[in-house]
Amino acid sequence: MKILLVGGSGTIGRRLAEALRPQHELILAGRNSGDERVDISQPPSIARLFDRLRSLDALICTAGEARWERFEAMSEADFQVGIRSKLMGQVLLAQHALQVLPPGGSITLSSGILADQPEDKTTSAAMVNGALHSFVRAAALELFDRRIRINVVCAGLVEDSYEKYKAFFPGHTPVPMRKVVDAYRRCLEGKIHGEVVRVWS
Amino acid sequence: MKILLVGGSGTIGRRLAEALRPQHELILAGRNSGDERVDISQPPSIARLFDRLRSLDALICTAGEARWERFEAMSEADFQVGIRSKLMGQVLLAQHALQVLPPGGSITLSSGILADQPEDKTTSAAMVNGALHSFVRAAALELFDRRIRINVVCAGLVEDSYEKYKAFFPGHTPVPMRKVVDAYRRCLEGKIHGEVVRVWS
Repeated sequence: MKILLVGGSGTIGRRLAEALRPQHELILAGRNSGDERVDISQPPSIARLFDRLRSLDALICTAGEARWERFEAMSEADFQVGIRSKLMGQVLLAQHALQVLPPGGSITLSSGILADQPEDKTTSAAMVNGALHSFVRAAALELFDRRIRINVVCAGLVEDSYEKYKAFFPGHTPVPMRKVVDAYRRCLEGKIHGEVVRVWS
Repeated sequence: MKILLVGGSGTIGRRLAEALRPQHELILAGRNSGDERVDISQPPSIARLFDRLRSLDALICTAGEARWERFEAMSEADFQVGIRSKLMGQVLLAQHALQVLPPGGSITLSSGILADQPEDKTTSAAMVNGALHSFVRAAALELFDRRIRINVVCAGLVEDSYEKYKAFFPGHTPVPMRKVVDAYRRCLEGKIHGEVVRVWS
């Protein structure tokens, strides 16, 4: 399959690219590296990316950020970071992908455990992840007739990020990268549709 | 209790105001009617509302809108309607309320069944409702130390809206208004914190 992998140089994207490369044709897209440059927080940047793409069998996005801060200290602009990047960035990627994906194509987005198990200072990240879960389930209803599948992988704190972030996730068991990669592969190569694939420990 | 009820003239707000008025002091706020005017999609309008309020024991919001449209036909501006109004409008109301609520105070927001049971053309409404669920659970962690409770009522298609909207909610059983009012009352007068109170049929 010809796969657009947005966030291909990130913690999860890197492992995913490694795992998928033997069987698939990958187009890696990222803000600062990759075959294609895209800043998903900027709608025109997404539009330009898709102008350059002819055909595609699948979109996977492992990119997107949100600000961590005490709720009372969060400005509206702080909330907008997550809304523009991780939420609307992925929504707009999905929308553009629909223009090029054939029947049988698939879209796989990324949320995160904070949707279900928030931690301190995660009002924005939790919000954005929860939004993605409901969005994917709603979009799935509409994509059924076009035979395009959409799913979202909701990973816990992954092994490769554990040392860096463990202080912010007290008591979280790191998720083996293999499990995370497998979750994306299930979305890509399996038949599931409209699912939130939770990968915890 | 002195309660700010935003959306007090809406379908749910009207019933809620009726039910709470005998025991509580209500300040009704709305876009076009009420004791106070506020457009929750406009952050400065929210700020001005709270400039005018001296003290408060509870905030309840039953206001907020989102656009219904086919996913592929949704513009970014269409998505922004729900994000600015029902999502960030309620988030900013909660943030402002924290400046005036005493320990023991409470915040009750409103989402809706589409978070869990989306229908056709509800990518935006589903997204916003799902975002509110995760937001409330994350915010609850931070408000614990201040003894301020926060919850969200997630109602199904309510009886008073049934005739108008039933075509968009095939097979949904209308929820009696009494049950909806009781859910808000449980958030207001009970002790629950960080809960998504689902009220379906």
